[in-house]
Amino acid sequence: MSERPQPTAQIAAVPTTTPFVAPEELARRAGHSSLLRLGANESAFGPPPRSLEAMHAGLQRTSWYGDPESRELREALGKRHRCSPSQLTVASGIDDILGLVVRAYMPPGGTALATLGTYPTFAFHVAGYGGRLETVPYEDDGTVPLDRLAARAGELQPQIIYVANPDNPSGSFAEAGTLERCLAALPRTTLLLLDEAYADFVEECELLRPAVRDGVIRARTFSKAFGLAGARIAYALATDEVGATLQKIRLHYGVNRTAQLAALAALEDEPFVRSVVAEVARGRDEYAALGTRLKIATLPSHTNFVCFDLGSRERAEAMVDELLHRGVFIRKPGAPPLDRFVRVTVGTPAERDRFAAVFEEALSALGSRSAWSFV
Amino acid sequence: MSERPQPTAQIAAVPTTTPFVAPEELARRAGHSSLLRLGANESAFGPPPRSLEAMHAGLQRTSWYGDPESRELREALGKRHRCSPSQLTVASGIDDILGLVVRAYMPPGGTALATLGTYPTFAFHVAGYGGRLETVPYEDDGTVPLDRLAARAGELQPQIIYVANPDNPSGSFAEAGTLERCLAALPRTTLLLLDEAYADFVEECELLRPAVRDGVIRARTFSKAFGLAGARIAYALATDEVGATLQKIRLHYGVNRTAQLAALAALEDEPFVRSVVAEVARGRDEYAALGTRLKIATLPSHTNFVCFDLGSRERAEAMVDELLHRGVFIRKPGAPPLDRFVRVTVGTPAERDRFAAVFEEALSALGSRSAWSFV
Repeated sequence: MSERPQPTAQIAAVPTTTPFVAPEELARRAGHSSLLRLGANESAFGPPPRSLEAMHAGLQRTSWYGDPESRELREALGKRHRCSPSQLTVASGIDDILGLVVRAYMPPGGTALATLGTYPTFAFHVAGYGGRLETVPYEDDGTVPLDRLAARAGELQPQIIYVANPDNPSGSFAEAGTLERCLAALPRTTLLLLDEAYADFVEECELLRPAVRDGVIRARTFSKAFGLAGARIAYALATDEVGATLQKIRLHYGVNRTAQLAALAALEDEPFVRSVVAEVARGRDEYAALGTRLKIATLPSHTNFVCFDLGSRERAEAMVDELLHRGVFIRKPGAPPLDRFVRVTVGTPAERDRFAAVFEEALSALGSRSAWSFV
Repeated sequence: MSERPQPTAQIAAVPTTTPFVAPEELARRAGHSSLLRLGANESAFGPPPRSLEAMHAGLQRTSWYGDPESRELREALGKRHRCSPSQLTVASGIDDILGLVVRAYMPPGGTALATLGTYPTFAFHVAGYGGRLETVPYEDDGTVPLDRLAARAGELQPQIIYVANPDNPSGSFAEAGTLERCLAALPRTTLLLLDEAYADFVEECELLRPAVRDGVIRARTFSKAFGLAGARIAYALATDEVGATLQKIRLHYGVNRTAQLAALAALEDEPFVRSVVAEVARGRDEYAALGTRLKIATLPSHTNFVCFDLGSRERAEAMVDELLHRGVFIRKPGAPPLDRFVRVTVGTPAERDRFAAVFEEALSALGSRSAWSFV
């Protein structure tokens, strides 16, 4: 018998993983005091002015807990999505929501299904709660293999199927009709966990309707188009039944008070958010044009990032290093067929210019480097 | 077979509980637009000026994620507690830490032990992770029954024993020697989860030393003396082994970026924090004197709140209602023998004056009310 308290057998079996090494840590390793941050799909356009105003005004009250029910925010979100506040669960980012959903709906020893190489924090939670993650690879063009996912779900009968739409890291998007067909083909006891972190970059009308339906949990965030990644605030849209289940286990006082104020104000700053979405669309076009000029294919994107095809995993990894060496932080997909790409966040016009220059320079370095290291 | 995805059996069995109804909700119910908040042990003295400055300066960068490793903050905390950053886990409040520890160290069907009626969020997590909470009642004088807890732990061999020190809601404090005796008497496989939310109100030298030791996890927060409750930031102090276990399952991006800046700055604002601790001590003395004047016994407190003895559970509950009716939010302990008390946070001098006046008025109302309702 052990001399010390021990973690449970299930937790002891969880592998030690770091889903993302932070840019702060990468900067330290590379010896830079700061980096051009184009790797975490943060908004280059900052928080909405109204959110900034609300946060500044609210800071003095940081000594007060936030409202654990996020009542005002959920009422505003209910109006936005035409649903009831009881169908909205506010949490500390989509990562928090993914954890709650996995915990609530997948028992230890259970099964979850996702696209191979999609947003890794879902896999992190499946492992953390003692489940098994099954995967289906992306289509070669970077789209999410919805038909194959549905077919595999029929075989596996997983508790949860995770789909990011628009997808991360590919940037691809499945329109409502396509997703609807996948949903209809799923086993009735499989929950579709729809990660809509980037949905604010597409027209609302292209998304699955109605917003709330049986068998689907949609996760939305203020981290991307709303420019509030550091605030850690997101929400789940689902039936009252799901809402009541999450209410039983969520961290009631987990959300920062200033973040609640910022999110509420962001919903009232539509002109700003629309301008961000428009500027991001321009930036995507610029990245595509840059790719064309440099003879590097890019994936069509419906998000605030674009994937550039470096031709091989090795070259893509080398590009991440070359850019980091030059003070630019990006990331790359980890699994085939997308592992030959690098993923670059749309920056401000000035940041895009800097990226274009550094990218071209890094490509040259890579060319001479690959001459001796990969051939 | 069900037609819809269902929560796991373990989660379905979790009762629906709301550990705390928020003051915002209580205000709505009572028809007040705001309340004098003396119920959640928030600091009446606001955030440290340096934290406010750091937060204002940092807000523009809310579009960036915080450092998932809270590296700078953990280095500063390491200096404060003379331990290594690897022995520090930063999380979104002590509630978050309690959840992580229960999840990591108590398997479903496991047992935890605590004082009956202590901080309810521990019980919330034990239920949420499928465990059984065993309890031992407080001593009649409101102190934590450490000897009886240790004896009961010997019988039950629980995975975790939870002790808040200073305690909430009693305000009592066990000095290092007393706690040391309890710790020595615990089964070697029982983890002592020490909730030190209020420890900043006592002298550091009176706390368990060294800061990090086998079999103990200490949870500390910026919510109380540091005046940052709404920021949601706290940390666990424990061995490297425990740190590595929590690292496997914690929400790496759960902490608000501005909260990290505020916490770091708060550690550099010692004069302010010392002045808060001194002012809180004065406020406790005032509350005790108020009790004496009104012939109401109070419990000695080592925290930023004081318990007033209303003589019976009914009168204490009626007092909470009477005060709420008059726009003052307080809470009360829920279990005997402390359920005859109300718990009142130390306010600013002006708030204490208002409380004293309203309390006296409510007592009169209670006197006449009890004449017909409780006799």
